[in-house]
Amino acid sequence: MTTPHPRLSINQATLQRTTVREAIDAVTAAGIQAIGLWRQQVQDAGLDESARMIADSGLRYSTHCRGGWFTAEEGPVRVTALDDNRRAIDETAVLAAAGAEGSRAALVLVVGGLPEGSRDLVGARERVRDAVARLAPHAEAQGVQLALEPLHPMYASDRSVLSTLDQALDIAADFDPAVVGVTVDTIHLWWDPEVTRKIARAGREGRIASYQVCDWKTPLPADNLLARQYPGDGVIDFETMTRAVEATGYTGDVEVELLNQEIWDTPPAEVVRRTVEGFQRAVAPFLG
Amino acid sequence: MTTPHPRLSINQATLQRTTVREAIDAVTAAGIQAIGLWRQQVQDAGLDESARMIADSGLRYSTHCRGGWFTAEEGPVRVTALDDNRRAIDETAVLAAAGAEGSRAALVLVVGGLPEGSRDLVGARERVRDAVARLAPHAEAQGVQLALEPLHPMYASDRSVLSTLDQALDIAADFDPAVVGVTVDTIHLWWDPEVTRKIARAGREGRIASYQVCDWKTPLPADNLLARQYPGDGVIDFETMTRAVEATGYTGDVEVELLNQEIWDTPPAEVVRRTVEGFQRAVAPFLG
Repeated sequence: MTTPHPRLSINQATLQRTTVREAIDAVTAAGIQAIGLWRQQVQDAGLDESARMIADSGLRYSTHCRGGWFTAEEGPVRVTALDDNRRAIDETAVLAAAGAEGSRAALVLVVGGLPEGSRDLVGARERVRDAVARLAPHAEAQGVQLALEPLHPMYASDRSVLSTLDQALDIAADFDPAVVGVTVDTIHLWWDPEVTRKIARAGREGRIASYQVCDWKTPLPADNLLARQYPGDGVIDFETMTRAVEATGYTGDVEVELLNQEIWDTPPAEVVRRTVEGFQRAVAPFLG
Repeated sequence: MTTPHPRLSINQATLQRTTVREAIDAVTAAGIQAIGLWRQQVQDAGLDESARMIADSGLRYSTHCRGGWFTAEEGPVRVTALDDNRRAIDETAVLAAAGAEGSRAALVLVVGGLPEGSRDLVGARERVRDAVARLAPHAEAQGVQLALEPLHPMYASDRSVLSTLDQALDIAADFDPAVVGVTVDTIHLWWDPEVTRKIARAGREGRIASYQVCDWKTPLPADNLLARQYPGDGVIDFETMTRAVEATGYTGDVEVELLNQEIWDTPPAEVVRRTVEGFQRAVAPFLG
């Protein structure tokens, strides 16, 4: 069995059907050193119990997934969303503190799409900026970095009105890099003709909170949310993107987050094995 | 029945199952003044006969669809693709000459995706530039404008390694605007946070060969190629994009090209009626 790269982290979305316990066990059994959990599973297990399991495991905590979904106009939906993000910030702080040295208190933010019936992309993007401004003081107080994640433009209407790294960086620019950063995910950004320039900018501005890797392959599945492939199984040029991230001085964990029905239908140990192999072949050769 | 806007053109892809004769009849019966045909149907009817039908109809010819697919590496596949594009240029010249005053000899180019097994986006994009350079003299001799069309990034691997208007403009910049222009299609570009700046650039550089409108709605169908909706049925802000195109001084036809199985399963006369209505409501108010 391939020895996992020391910077490989498994995001729990890859192991969709696992509890926190099962995810931790699958990851540690393979010799992987880091993990990122999802809120629902953490809440199912309990935050304190999840933190205890992370501490006992000796794993680094790489990211907490996820907050965001705050493009609604002023009103109760927006208030609820912002409150929920404050709780997510709290969870991030607790879990990252429980992780081994090198853990990051980074909360990944998928900002949300257009509100129902709206065509106002510009307004929705302004509300993202506003939401970040409202959350930043709490994040700062908790020592948590908000990690704005631009999503592939095919999700622009229903999941993320942020589609490019420059958009995320333009919002982040108003804040301390320790408080607001960005998530660089290959599947969302690989098509961008300026992606290496934008990654360099993200690095120069000290904003890279997380580097996530998964692959793109067509035809996409009927549900395009589940289009993610093991690194190396698709067409993404991981060498160029990974070298660009490394060149910024990023030394953090590299997460694999695979939303894919076939992978979810595979036993976790096998998924972890395939992830380690794909990462070793497609990504590890380009890590510092 | 709504009177069609004088600048509305129907692209034959909207009436997928029609012959050239049927498409012309459906469009003229509704009082529409312009049409764009597809190569396969023109070849089925015969080029000279198609030109005769266009001339007899009194319609303007708005675009010829489509050329491109020239990202293959050097070799017989590439030679065949370039030869085929030269024939498409010839067809464009003949059909536009047969159209009424205001016709455009514009050949829409969908450039193609990554060659099988390749991860080299940069190389594929360079081969697009090379192909345009090889075709430009023939286009110029025939009085045809090559209309590079950036496609939505969800097609970056399998249909178009050009994803943004700036990429298309950067390639076009080496050539006379009368020979190489760009196609602005709302469904491909609406998500781009810089789309109005890029449209302004396209106008300033004299490159807008065609403006195409169709709408975006989620969830996308299982085959994302068929995701196009009647203008007004989705979330695209046609006001902003149309005003941006108008502000450049573009006075040409505005084409509706709908690839959508449900629309293809609807009788052509009804499709034309719905197109006229959608256009009138969502696009026409922002024209000139």
